[in-house]
Amino acid sequence: MKLGRLNHVGVATPLITDSIAFYRDTMSATAIGEPFDLPAQGVKVCFVDTPNTQIELIEPLGEGSPIHGFLAKHPGGGQHHLCYEVEDILIAKTWFEGRGVRVLGEPRIGAHGTLVLFLHPKDTGGVLTELMEAPQH
Amino acid sequence: MKLGRLNHVGVATPLITDSIAFYRDTMSATAIGEPFDLPAQGVKVCFVDTPNTQIELIEPLGEGSPIHGFLAKHPGGGQHHLCYEVEDILIAKTWFEGRGVRVLGEPRIGAHGTLVLFLHPKDTGGVLTELMEAPQH
Repeated sequence: MKLGRLNHVGVATPLITDSIAFYRDTMSATAIGEPFDLPAQGVKVCFVDTPNTQIELIEPLGEGSPIHGFLAKHPGGGQHHLCYEVEDILIAKTWFEGRGVRVLGEPRIGAHGTLVLFLHPKDTGGVLTELMEAPQH
Repeated sequence: MKLGRLNHVGVATPLITDSIAFYRDTMSATAIGEPFDLPAQGVKVCFVDTPNTQIELIEPLGEGSPIHGFLAKHPGGGQHHLCYEVEDILIAKTWFEGRGVRVLGEPRIGAHGTLVLFLHPKDTGGVLTELMEAPQH
């Protein structure tokens, strides 16, 4: 294992259309994807490119969305998670579990179409951490 | 203006030595700087490199440290701010103020030795945002 690219910073928002307008008009992002639903994770997603990484805007999708709790604490939105790329999600799962880091559930398909998993923030210095297999280009 | 590189993600920690050990031994970072004090900002700082950006570990330095409040809410630490590079800090200040984004104080020297300023998180979707002039290489 070695620390991989920071694929994206997840930023929760109560209203993704407002956040897209903010990143376009105020933060001056020039590359913003189309928003899309990711029902398996209970979020609507939109990626905003920076020159070296991405901001992943996430809005709750459905009543069971895992980010309702976050937005209850932070009604205006805020930083939700960091996502690092790994080569192999199962090797990563074994690595972190072997070092006492709780893995939240089994790997599943994430917003970039590759396998992802989340690490418990209480085991990672308070940072909700997503690991994702890097897309093959 | 255009959205610049994500220079770093600021991560607050109650004990920077523990966090450095975590990033080295568990996150498997291979490039970690020496911690240093930044009294002007009331923090002890250590940069952890990822292949494309950095994690800035920050521990409170002194009783007046601005991150005591954050750690009171998040005793185990957590994501504190995002820092984007800008070409000119004064042009950036004027840009954001002109769009109704509150700038916190005047530009001052940051952890990379260049001018930085912070934007009010209530005006940036809940994300405490630092802007820094890119180091000249």
